[in-house]
Amino acid sequence: MLNSHTSQFLYDQVYDLIRAQIASGSLRPGDKLPSLRGFSRQLKVSIATIMQGYTNLEQEGFITARAQSGFFVSPSIDRSIALPSATSPKPVARDIQLSGVVRDLLKLSRTPGVVPLGLANPGGSLLPCRTLARIMHRVVTRSPLEAVEYAELSGHRELRHQIAYRSGMLGTAIDPDSIVITNGASEALALSLKSVTKPGDTIAVESPTYFLLLQLIEDLGLKAIEVPSNPTHGLDIDSLEDILEQFNVSCVMCVANFNNPYGSLLPDSQKQRLVNLVNSKGVRLIEDDIYGDLHFGEHRPLPLRSFDYQGNVVTCSSFSKTLAPGYRIGWIVAESDREEMLSRKHSVSLSTSSVGQMVVAEYLATAGYERHLRGLRRRLMQQVHKMRLKLGNHLPKGTRISQPQGGFVLWVELPRGVDALKVFSRCLENQVSVLPGTIFSPTWKFRNCLRVSCGHPWNESIDQAVKLLGRVTAAEQQTRGH
Amino acid sequence: MLNSHTSQFLYDQVYDLIRAQIASGSLRPGDKLPSLRGFSRQLKVSIATIMQGYTNLEQEGFITARAQSGFFVSPSIDRSIALPSATSPKPVARDIQLSGVVRDLLKLSRTPGVVPLGLANPGGSLLPCRTLARIMHRVVTRSPLEAVEYAELSGHRELRHQIAYRSGMLGTAIDPDSIVITNGASEALALSLKSVTKPGDTIAVESPTYFLLLQLIEDLGLKAIEVPSNPTHGLDIDSLEDILEQFNVSCVMCVANFNNPYGSLLPDSQKQRLVNLVNSKGVRLIEDDIYGDLHFGEHRPLPLRSFDYQGNVVTCSSFSKTLAPGYRIGWIVAESDREEMLSRKHSVSLSTSSVGQMVVAEYLATAGYERHLRGLRRRLMQQVHKMRLKLGNHLPKGTRISQPQGGFVLWVELPRGVDALKVFSRCLENQVSVLPGTIFSPTWKFRNCLRVSCGHPWNESIDQAVKLLGRVTAAEQQTRGH
Repeated sequence: MLNSHTSQFLYDQVYDLIRAQIASGSLRPGDKLPSLRGFSRQLKVSIATIMQGYTNLEQEGFITARAQSGFFVSPSIDRSIALPSATSPKPVARDIQLSGVVRDLLKLSRTPGVVPLGLANPGGSLLPCRTLARIMHRVVTRSPLEAVEYAELSGHRELRHQIAYRSGMLGTAIDPDSIVITNGASEALALSLKSVTKPGDTIAVESPTYFLLLQLIEDLGLKAIEVPSNPTHGLDIDSLEDILEQFNVSCVMCVANFNNPYGSLLPDSQKQRLVNLVNSKGVRLIEDDIYGDLHFGEHRPLPLRSFDYQGNVVTCSSFSKTLAPGYRIGWIVAESDREEMLSRKHSVSLSTSSVGQMVVAEYLATAGYERHLRGLRRRLMQQVHKMRLKLGNHLPKGTRISQPQGGFVLWVELPRGVDALKVFSRCLENQVSVLPGTIFSPTWKFRNCLRVSCGHPWNESIDQAVKLLGRVTAAEQQTRGH
Repeated sequence: MLNSHTSQFLYDQVYDLIRAQIASGSLRPGDKLPSLRGFSRQLKVSIATIMQGYTNLEQEGFITARAQSGFFVSPSIDRSIALPSATSPKPVARDIQLSGVVRDLLKLSRTPGVVPLGLANPGGSLLPCRTLARIMHRVVTRSPLEAVEYAELSGHRELRHQIAYRSGMLGTAIDPDSIVITNGASEALALSLKSVTKPGDTIAVESPTYFLLLQLIEDLGLKAIEVPSNPTHGLDIDSLEDILEQFNVSCVMCVANFNNPYGSLLPDSQKQRLVNLVNSKGVRLIEDDIYGDLHFGEHRPLPLRSFDYQGNVVTCSSFSKTLAPGYRIGWIVAESDREEMLSRKHSVSLSTSSVGQMVVAEYLATAGYERHLRGLRRRLMQQVHKMRLKLGNHLPKGTRISQPQGGFVLWVELPRGVDALKVFSRCLENQVSVLPGTIFSPTWKFRNCLRVSCGHPWNESIDQAVKLLGRVTAAEQQTRGH
């Protein structure tokens, strides 16, 4: 029975119930849904509530209405879109030369007016910007001086406390004094990587991996070695073990919770293996946990540091994917390296901007953030599923698409031979931005892959953009056929 | 005659008039000042106005009242405090190992409750924090979404326009698109230095030089070579010329306008020579112009880039010394290197926090900033002069103190043999923070020097701190004598 405390959200609960049944297979394509009247009586909610839940499911393509017959699970979701292949890169430590290309691509992707399927930003309408504006007015009126003065180098004390508190709720006790607040996760990753390596070192990364990590590795004069990864379960620990045997790797960088671009989730057993492995080898481990709060499953997956009792894991995260990208607030959790990182932060940027820290600290102290996250997760999950269905409908046969378990990007493997860089360019000419797969590898692999962001709520221009992507890809495929 | 449009500020004009006469020597120590009544008639302002101006001058030690006789220029300002010696470091390119020490010192200097004569921060009461709070409320209410979303990577467009506009008023045309907004001047300097050098390169710096520049040089694996400098006129261009002949220097870093810690000002003729010299040698030049707006003289000194027609000079600056340190807004003006810097910024921190940029852009568009700067300059000049007099009174004979022409730090050369690191430690034990001179040199020179910040308005605890500094120094001097 549905929880009736939050009547406002009842139709979302109807939605979730049906979605879960479809996902588990207890409702199959073509199956009839419970009648409005019957379901209303069974769940003890109004018919209008059931109707609203069904309407949302219909709009997203999960169910279809048939005149005089009721609602049915869509046959189209039976089109069982295949998952991308697991990767098996050659184990070679390589210099990276990617920055120039990434820079140019991202510049293009930022052109005003393009349909934003490129950058992994949450749509502005999903963010609680008015609530944050009110809180900002309150804290700045209360403490106008604090807002213009330097924050502590390690970050606003109350914000560090709130982050530690939230981490504690996950079962991972963190001392607020082991946290360093940074200019977003980007600075967190840059400071962390710089602090645990020296130029020339080799870093093991997932394949594919987030291009910013590759840029950082290039910037610091490091080498990267790609580790085979699976679109569902992430990093292949057996392969990593072989690599650590053969190569002198100083650090592993891993997005265990919803790898960008795969959306893969490293299972707990593998997280423990990974941490044990690096600890036994004396290899450092940096995790980027920015997508961890955006889980589609019931529970928030644990960060890698939960499995580490040696203080070897450095955790980086931020509020950029969940709350306010423009505030640029990220953080590092690091024990032994904290002083080193503070020193580096002092020389590259001093303390992080004060106002944003004050606002987020105040917001986290309310129940608002958890409520916001619940809504955000549901919206992103809907957007990701809808995009996956639509891409499946419009892209050529043979296309494979990841099935993320969190976050909001999709990894699309176009049929072999299709040049995704050309698809990318053609799309951009038509004011649609996606990202080509090549920048997710130091070796320019993934030439037939794209990353598609689902951060923005569905609208007509996104709908048109997906259709365009389908046409452009088909045309490119034909060209290759000749 | 005084301008009577701004009656509110008339007594400040009285103050300035007398200060200027003392500075020029037309009023000498012991000279009698004009009578209240006579001066009032002459300037066509009230006696109360004259009295207020005189009172301020008296409080700061420039003049003294004698019963029944009127006001006189203080004899104490005749104590003609000597200037520090010009430096003549050995021309050797060196690795730097300073970060650990600087980190520890700064950590100590940040201890809550210490009298803040260490860090070069403007006192909070000098900053327009309530005005900024109001503007923040306005812009965030108007554009709540913009406040939480990523700003442009290169920075808020209107802010870049305003910075370019202000630069134009100085006679230096800048394209807003040649500006990159950064997390304070620290990030500006870090990005600039990284972009124009490669590890192992040699960088020429002033002697003494701001410790953050030395930290950056260390961080990037560069070498530093110190160039002789003068406490009044700054960098010695003849010596630099010799160094550029003998060494393979890739970049010169210079604070031409009010070097930190000297407060020296490179004359225009030398600025032109410097720019011509580096341009002819193909050496890059990075200037840090954060103190440029805090001139005590009538005119804003020109940045080095005004003398460059080849796009070789990279200018870094920020609003941290003049407006809102906690906003962390700095910028780089760079032509040819801009794309490179944007790429690096993308990988180390992404865009700069949005809210602060929106607020500063809005504030700069009003007349408020210029008005604020006028008041700030006057206050800082008063604070610097007062501190210089007080230090002169309390420190042992033989102490030399810089006479800055802008900014708000003093460089204090204690009598030979006095260990400033010990003075620093003893002060800190007594809750007073200053900075030891050693961290302003890669070779740990300046062992008998201190930097004293005058950013905070005079108060009783600062008065006591200066007396303590005097006692501690005298005691240390005695120890050395035995």
